[in-house]
Amino acid sequence: MRRILVLFLALMLYPLSSQAQGPVKQLPGDLTLEQAQTVLNAALAKSKAQGVPMNITVVDAGGNLKAFAREDGAFLGSIDVSKKKAITARFFNMSSADLGAAAQPGKELFGIEVTNGGLVIFGGGELLVHNGVIVGAIGVSGGSVAEDTAVAKAGAAALSNAAKKKN
Amino acid sequence: MRRILVLFLALMLYPLSSQAQGPVKQLPGDLTLEQAQTVLNAALAKSKAQGVPMNITVVDAGGNLKAFAREDGAFLGSIDVSKKKAITARFFNMSSADLGAAAQPGKELFGIEVTNGGLVIFGGGELLVHNGVIVGAIGVSGGSVAEDTAVAKAGAAALSNAAKKKN
Amino acid sequence: MRRILVLFLALMLYPLSSQAQGPVKQLPGDLTLEQAQTVLNAALAKSKAQGVPMNITVVDAGGNLKAFAREDGAFLGSIDVSKKKAITARFFNMSSADLGAAAQPGKELFGIEVTNGGLVIFGGGELLVHNGVIVGAIGVSGGSVAEDTAVAKAGAAALSNAAKKKN
Amino acid sequence: MRRILVLFLALMLYPLSSQAQGPVKQLPGDLTLEQAQTVLNAALAKSKAQGVPMNITVVDAGGNLKAFAREDGAFLGSIDVSKKKAITARFFNMSSADLGAAAQPGKELFGIEVTNGGLVIFGGGELLVHNGVIVGAIGVSGGSVAEDTAVAKAGAAALSNAAKKKN
Repeated sequence: MRRILVLFLALMLYPLSSQAQGPVKQLPGDLTLEQAQTVLNAALAKSKAQGVPMNITVVDAGGNLKAFAREDGAFLGSIDVSKKKAITARFFNMSSADLGAAAQPGKELFGIEVTNGGLVIFGGGELLVHNGVIVGAIGVSGGSVAEDTAVAKAGAAALSNAAKKKN
Repeated sequence: MRRILVLFLALMLYPLSSQAQGPVKQLPGDLTLEQAQTVLNAALAKSKAQGVPMNITVVDAGGNLKAFAREDGAFLGSIDVSKKKAITARFFNMSSADLGAAAQPGKELFGIEVTNGGLVIFGGGELLVHNGVIVGAIGVSGGSVAEDTAVAKAGAAALSNAAKKKN
Repeated sequence: MRRILVLFLALMLYPLSSQAQGPVKQLPGDLTLEQAQTVLNAALAKSKAQGVPMNITVVDAGGNLKAFAREDGAFLGSIDVSKKKAITARFFNMSSADLGAAAQPGKELFGIEVTNGGLVIFGGGELLVHNGVIVGAIGVSGGSVAEDTAVAKAGAAALSNAAKKKN
Repeated sequence: MRRILVLFLALMLYPLSSQAQGPVKQLPGDLTLEQAQTVLNAALAKSKAQGVPMNITVVDAGGNLKAFAREDGAFLGSIDVSKKKAITARFFNMSSADLGAAAQPGKELFGIEVTNGGLVIFGGGELLVHNGVIVGAIGVSGGSVAEDTAVAKAGAAALSNAAKKKN
């Protein structure tokens, strides 16, 4: 109940503050840069603890780039892989691992990875959920799939935890 | 002289520290994430002071993405513009404004913007120089060209200033 | 020890020699054209010995094209394959064969080849390492994977051998 | 007369030597790697004399990449510009400067640079002519248009001169 009140309050305040400058430019409730940085920093902390340098992409509810960081020595090729993992998760509203399970040879979605300019069908892309709403996704690439996934989940968890603390 | 010594020390430590894990993955002297974040944060501070939300891209010496942030309400179309401004600056070792001056109708490089998958030939892309070496570039997009340029220059200056403080 | 001294000397001379002309344009330690031509010529010699015409691409540490040659009668389609093999190796800091092993059906990175505008997940892309630092990659295409790989390795070995001779 | 005899002889020899391995793979008379390297080396020599580092692309009669070199410190963005200059010259059988003259605002071909994945409509792309036949093109980028053009013409002249010497 309290979290619905918070959402209402946020929605009410947005339009007022910007009325002087025309219509609101960003959907109320969409991922903020502050949230994206919370996610990014939590992911970076996990990555440093693991010791394998990563590329980390955060996209918003529209699947558009919001924040990014590449650690020193991380794969150059993982810039794009991390981006595609984040997009994959948000475009199909599931982790890239879950989409991947359905895209193996013989499975229903085999070949889906060539759509949308290229998707990634292995782990490391996770949804960002805030107050019960999908607000974006995080994609991580640079290590093994298990390492990438651990970093992505640490990033996603930071947003959920931040929400819990406030509510 | 002290800055040359610092550079030497850094270069000496790099190869040694990683010998256990195979060859060094990132060229010593290339932009670090710490430097990229210094640049990004200085640019964000300038942008907040101006009050117009921006997209800010930082690339390394090879023109590859290193850090990115999109402020709330900033143009979605400026994700790509900011990226292309950074790449334009690094690809031609000058600000995007300087390249643009040479690319006007009747000028020598008219039409160059259709190369390299699309360049941006107006201001907002600036070089990142550290210890006398080009180590990357910053691209900013979201406001007027003057506003974009001010933010890009604030970002670039933060790297130079950080270098001066240490030396 | 001597090779570290040589590296130091080279790095010291770079910034000084160019101070009159603005900042240094190429990161000290990145692949030089002379090195790229050493690699290319060694690869061409191996290719001639094998008798199957090849496309040979050399990229620098940033994954950007440095040198290229297509032998007479070599596949036109291998211009791009050789380029993508070189980029694949540098983007993931391993041979394209090693990446390919992890990208088979049922393996962890299945489907990765659709990222980065297209990667190549079979042999023929090898890293270029100089003084313990990855400075680029070579990609070779035109024959069987074994033939391509032999030429790529001959090219890569020429750089290592040149380094050993000098030190 | 003598050059026609030489051409005939060349055409007669090609099919014979390769009959054992199926059809001939490269059009007799098309640019050879040896010729491309002659062009490239002459262009590199001119570039060194000028002192401005260049990107140099050589394409064959089909407009496909045959040889390439990037001098140390040359613009990364000129990899693509040099390639597009060479393709522009061969695709329209005139120098990129000549096409550019017809592509200025108010002129007949205004806007043509957005076709073919991007053309370059300023100088630095020159045709390669051998024995009266267009066999390819050279594209040069890295300095002023005058500097680029001088290097491209030096490369193209080397092929003509080589032809004269042999005949």
